[in-house]
Amino acid sequence: MKEQEFAIGVDLGGTNTVVGFVNNRGDCVEEISFPTQTKDGPQKYIEELADRIAGMHGRIPQKSECMGLGIAAPHVSYSNGMIVAPANLDWGPVNLISLLAERFDLPVAALNDANAAALGEMGCGAARGLTNFVLVTLGTGIGSGVVAAGHLLTGARGLAGEFGHMIAVRDGRECGCGRRGCIETYASARGIVRTALELMSQRNTATMLANERPADLTSERIYIAAKNGDLIARTTFDKTARILGGTLADLAACVDPEAIILSGGVMRAGETLLDPVKKYFEDNLLYTLKEKIPILPSMYPEGQAAVIGACLWLRQQIGLAGEPSW
Amino acid sequence: MKEQEFAIGVDLGGTNTVVGFVNNRGDCVEEISFPTQTKDGPQKYIEELADRIAGMHGRIPQKSECMGLGIAAPHVSYSNGMIVAPANLDWGPVNLISLLAERFDLPVAALNDANAAALGEMGCGAARGLTNFVLVTLGTGIGSGVVAAGHLLTGARGLAGEFGHMIAVRDGRECGCGRRGCIETYASARGIVRTALELMSQRNTATMLANERPADLTSERIYIAAKNGDLIARTTFDKTARILGGTLADLAACVDPEAIILSGGVMRAGETLLDPVKKYFEDNLLYTLKEKIPILPSMYPEGQAAVIGACLWLRQQIGLAGEPSW
Repeated sequence: MKEQEFAIGVDLGGTNTVVGFVNNRGDCVEEISFPTQTKDGPQKYIEELADRIAGMHGRIPQKSECMGLGIAAPHVSYSNGMIVAPANLDWGPVNLISLLAERFDLPVAALNDANAAALGEMGCGAARGLTNFVLVTLGTGIGSGVVAAGHLLTGARGLAGEFGHMIAVRDGRECGCGRRGCIETYASARGIVRTALELMSQRNTATMLANERPADLTSERIYIAAKNGDLIARTTFDKTARILGGTLADLAACVDPEAIILSGGVMRAGETLLDPVKKYFEDNLLYTLKEKIPILPSMYPEGQAAVIGACLWLRQQIGLAGEPSW
Repeated sequence: MKEQEFAIGVDLGGTNTVVGFVNNRGDCVEEISFPTQTKDGPQKYIEELADRIAGMHGRIPQKSECMGLGIAAPHVSYSNGMIVAPANLDWGPVNLISLLAERFDLPVAALNDANAAALGEMGCGAARGLTNFVLVTLGTGIGSGVVAAGHLLTGARGLAGEFGHMIAVRDGRECGCGRRGCIETYASARGIVRTALELMSQRNTATMLANERPADLTSERIYIAAKNGDLIARTTFDKTARILGGTLADLAACVDPEAIILSGGVMRAGETLLDPVKKYFEDNLLYTLKEKIPILPSMYPEGQAAVIGACLWLRQQIGLAGEPSW
């Protein structure tokens, strides 16, 4: 394989799309990010994606050196490229692989975004050297990827790893999936906002969050309020951590990982979230696993692990070496 | 490999021990069962096991034809053979592999009982031809084995598959593991008895179960009462199925199996349990998985899947062919 062989990695996020050129050592040598515009349909989105890629300057590979394009997207089936009911996109069923292969005339592989992020973490992330771990993305939604004995757990239909839709609270909050109480409704960015609203409804405590319109409230603003000592904001993170820590302990009982890695926009809260999550996780852990499973933050910039993982997945799918050089 | 090559499979259950001779086609050609007596310690137990094996008549293999002994036991680590805190045995930490290898002078491999049952089901059980499935044993406790892409999910420490200790009811019933609300406290044999007692405490309904001392009540007696139309008994199975179906749906979201197989003594209740479990499972399933995951009863006599699976595990551990002839 030539030293200069690149792949294009794309992370189609609900809010932003990240595109990167990934070399065969697993380094993302060039990266851009732009808002995901999906309201005009998938064709328009792919045209914008192509324009953005063409506009990337710096070390752009010649097409002859580009092995293909790997895309990470929510709820995509790796086997046929279909996104059936994209929760955070305004599309009907879409075959991402066909659309992209046609537009770019390159080999294309698609993978669930959190699964891709898990593969990416194995490269040079927090999971380097680990063969059994779970990656959980806390963003607009919650996804996860399980790696067991060095292999991604894809499940029978490529739908494994829907940790976000484990029921954390029976008959709890309404979820976009049509059910109630999924952990996503508590520990995603929006879930944290809902917890703050719930606490404001229940408690008689003054809070700077009362000055925000609910539509403008974000997990980041709540994090800033918590840093400034706001009691409702601090309690919001404690409640989030309690529910998340407990549900992570359930997942750990099923897969016995070496570590759990947390990533995604919600993790900008850093220790404000991570410290209580670790505590509640330990409190809820089965005795045989206690003090054996560290919870680690991802070491990648947002979206980059999925971009790198999508390229690794592409390599595996087109049969370019079972093991990459990184 | 000789046609006559046998392995000895042992399933060390909390109530009964099952021993079988398993040939290289995966058939259990000779099987006995005896009550598990553990109060005099592991040495005494192993002496009785040796006596029972010596006493087995019929097609007993010559030692020269016996490839070894595989044992399935609760909470055993496959890597070192240790049972650290055997919940349903009266022992301290025990190294099963060392004790058995010394007594029998044969290669020995050990595996968590539910994991062994999952491997056994792949042979000629309900999971024949499946490469992604979950086996859940509903007995004295609850165990599970996850098979993904044809391989047993062992986890980092051989502790994967502790489905029985997923929290089904936050702050719920006290569990032997020291925590509260594990699915084992609701859907194991003893969990079903606890549900019947709970319903008797809450409802003003006449029930034939009121004539049993709580210590004598078993899930089987409740099943018989349910068959005879007893309302408390029927409600007991409905409640058991509701909690079990919901928790199985959470597990399914994480691993996306082709099927879920239920086995163990509790499954003697047959459709009385299975039908409502299927209903509540579907009700709780994530939309992408709906109507895609059948719940099947095991087709083996109790304990036999674990006996066969323990022998398959032994073959894998001593390197006798990656794939067995069955």
